Amino acid sequence: MTIDPTVLDRFVAIVGERHALRDANEIEPYVMEPRGLYGGATKLVLRPGSVEEISRIMQLANETRTEIVPQGGNTGLVGGQMPDRGGNQIVLSLSRLNRIREIDVASNTATVEAGVVLQVLQEAVAGKDRLFPLSLGSQGSCQIGGNLSSNAGGVGALAYGTARDLCLGVEVVLPTGEVLDDLRKLKKDNTGYELKDLFVGGEGTLGIITAAVVKLFPMPKGRELAWAALPSPEDALRFFEMANEKAGSALTAFELIERTPLAFALKHIPGAVDPLSEEHPWYVMVEISSSRSDDDAKMLMEEILTVAFEEGLVTDAAIAQNEAQSATFRHLRESLSEAQRPEGGSIKHDISVPVARIPEFLELAGKAVQGVSPGARVACFGHMGDGNLHYNVSQPEGADKEEYLKLYRPMNEAVHAIVRELGGSFSAEHGIGTLKRDELLATQSGIATDLMRRIKKAFDPAGILNPGKVI
Amino acid sequence: MTIDPTVLDRFVAIVGERHALRDANEIEPYVMEPRGLYGGATKLVLRPGSVEEISRIMQLANETRTEIVPQGGNTGLVGGQMPDRGGNQIVLSLSRLNRIREIDVASNTATVEAGVVLQVLQEAVAGKDRLFPLSLGSQGSCQIGGNLSSNAGGVGALAYGTARDLCLGVEVVLPTGEVLDDLRKLKKDNTGYELKDLFVGGEGTLGIITAAVVKLFPMPKGRELAWAALPSPEDALRFFEMANEKAGSALTAFELIERTPLAFALKHIPGAVDPLSEEHPWYVMVEISSSRSDDDAKMLMEEILTVAFEEGLVTDAAIAQNEAQSATFRHLRESLSEAQRPEGGSIKHDISVPVARIPEFLELAGKAVQGVSPGARVACFGHMGDGNLHYNVSQPEGADKEEYLKLYRPMNEAVHAIVRELGGSFSAEHGIGTLKRDELLATQSGIATDLMRRIKKAFDPAGILNPGKVI
Repeated sequence: MTIDPTVLDRFVAIVGERHALRDANEIEPYVMEPRGLYGGATKLVLRPGSVEEISRIMQLANETRTEIVPQGGNTGLVGGQMPDRGGNQIVLSLSRLNRIREIDVASNTATVEAGVVLQVLQEAVAGKDRLFPLSLGSQGSCQIGGNLSSNAGGVGALAYGTARDLCLGVEVVLPTGEVLDDLRKLKKDNTGYELKDLFVGGEGTLGIITAAVVKLFPMPKGRELAWAALPSPEDALRFFEMANEKAGSALTAFELIERTPLAFALKHIPGAVDPLSEEHPWYVMVEISSSRSDDDAKMLMEEILTVAFEEGLVTDAAIAQNEAQSATFRHLRESLSEAQRPEGGSIKHDISVPVARIPEFLELAGKAVQGVSPGARVACFGHMGDGNLHYNVSQPEGADKEEYLKLYRPMNEAVHAIVRELGGSFSAEHGIGTLKRDELLATQSGIATDLMRRIKKAFDPAGILNPGKVI
Repeated sequence: MTIDPTVLDRFVAIVGERHALRDANEIEPYVMEPRGLYGGATKLVLRPGSVEEISRIMQLANETRTEIVPQGGNTGLVGGQMPDRGGNQIVLSLSRLNRIREIDVASNTATVEAGVVLQVLQEAVAGKDRLFPLSLGSQGSCQIGGNLSSNAGGVGALAYGTARDLCLGVEVVLPTGEVLDDLRKLKKDNTGYELKDLFVGGEGTLGIITAAVVKLFPMPKGRELAWAALPSPEDALRFFEMANEKAGSALTAFELIERTPLAFALKHIPGAVDPLSEEHPWYVMVEISSSRSDDDAKMLMEEILTVAFEEGLVTDAAIAQNEAQSATFRHLRESLSEAQRPEGGSIKHDISVPVARIPEFLELAGKAVQGVSPGARVACFGHMGDGNLHYNVSQPEGADKEEYLKLYRPMNEAVHAIVRELGGSFSAEHGIGTLKRDELLATQSGIATDLMRRIKKAFDPAGILNPGKVI
């Protein structure tokens, strides 16, 4: 359905000309995501400045059956934030709702609007000696609303949980324009069905999260970061189990990294330096946090590394000596995805399996990949402690990129078949969006997708909110 | 609608005569809960032995529009597990589905059927050096299915979360008889809407949880338990904040106890002994767990108690010297509810407020209670670290019990008005059931209850599963 120009004008009137973008150049950043993989088209980007304006937008959308695509920092990796190519969906940017409404130090909560950039929130609460533990590569530009809508994971999920676990309450504009004010600060509340957990992870298809109450934690008194080399994924698993036993919730990151993506980073990322002097097939980046002291974190880190050396799990390790070196390790880890680009085509997977099955997955998937594209280079890294790997496969050296990328589907199928066999998920933390919708429908049980459809219909009977995403 | 006897026979045929109870004496334990507060009536209790039988029961229920009430250990406090008094609802007991299907030590998960008694699970995983941290007064008889359906909280929720947080996947028989197999072991899985979190806490109105994957934790190497005396709730709050800062997630229990309920326990519970030699107005029971060692837990406990003494927050304290003494402290805490019974009528509230507002709540509620019933005795205790208090109010000494209990509604209204004012919940961990349904409808936003109704209708269009509960 083509939008009537008079209808467009009515949408513009709600936010005011200044905050309605119709010029193609101004619209461009909203219809193409940073990697250039997902593009869409729209005649209008609305940048409302209040919940009330968003409510009026949805009322008008409902009246005129206009499709609305909510968008945060536009960093999503599965196309969930993109309008389709038809040009008749309106993009609703949450960016102007960027107020931190409250930081409640005593209750360890922050009430934040959807458009607050993740890093801005991290820094604001750090100023009050509090930690907001959600931590992602895109934290400098992604927004809380998008983090919640996609149930973002990241490095900190191991100890602190995903975005859903970190969210206590939400304020949501429903597809009908009604506003659900559910901004609770409560750790326990059993008053009826858990609506919040549908909006969190709902990828903007059930309602538009406009604000949320998130959990904060006392800032750890000490943090230690180590980069350790290991012979194999089996050793990494045994190291993880041992560290988990000894450190418990003080183990705040456990990232697995294969040599290949590290080698890519050392080659392509300016200033990247190998933390260790020799090459090793596998690495883990381990973080220990202590609520007591820096010395306590050091002691615990040294204890687990000592045991790991003694048991032959770890063959070399570097402990970051100061904040600057910690930042270098972290930056190296975060650059692994980007470092793949100069190596040509990359076929990506965001999978999870039960933690104990990671070595098995790596072995089986490694073989399957060679079956699809002999010579393809697995560049795997990820959140081992969560069973979540970014299993990215770069083209064989010297191969033709276009030809290689034609293998996207068979490669996905081969890898995801193994994931299913091991009881895993083909979308651990990035969501479904448009990218994985067909696969969701093809592989989830018919009962599960049927229930999801019923929920979508119950919440958005007119089907106007982020249509074509998830389900 | 009266159930046709031939229909009853068809239900009986599914489970077999042996597992279908029609005799009034046999039925009795299923239609009266242990405290004797909620009673119902039924002509038939079904005790199916498999998921497949439950599926067939729901198919038949659907065909014949027969109302089904699922029931676990029958320990729920809000009537959620009770049939109504009409006698035409069938009780479906999950007790025979009592197999622990798997304990996966490496992945830190257990796959358990709904009828497994909580304590049985705790002990089974302890045998493999694992902790299942859900811990309730009724753990000797409550069942996992009920724990999940009511999103149980308890003492361990402070560090480990409620039942919802502890559940990774579920197997559910839907009202239509279809079986949703969602028994995932994954810490991260963003494949569509989070269905699990609707069934968990859904009080058996959206589906029947037949099995679940729950999280396990490495058994702590050391645990220390202290019973400390404090001048006031303000001191308890400051103590909690300090302990939370210093111990972080090693702080695994922080229970607030007023003198009154302790005095009741000392008077009425055989063998109960005051852990301290003098009387004090307030107490906290604090647990520290260490993943490292017993000594480490001791050191941390001593450190926080020392600071608490120095700052005048705590005036006396006893640290349990061994497992036996720990058990005594725990038993004393768990007996507080029971100890109120000999003191006459008790009007109970299960509330939560943001943690920092607990002192304010106690002051305001204390006044409000006296306004409703001068001389009524507040016997408050609960999970302070979660902002969750069991705010029970015993009748004035020597008052007439029946007369006092007539004040149930005005007392609830007075207390819950303050809860609302402070942004709290009138059902923190016990759920809605039938007890609080009217209050849910009266006080939640119309939008929230409307969404809940839409979900109920989407999942159970015939309205046959646990009707009259929650919504």
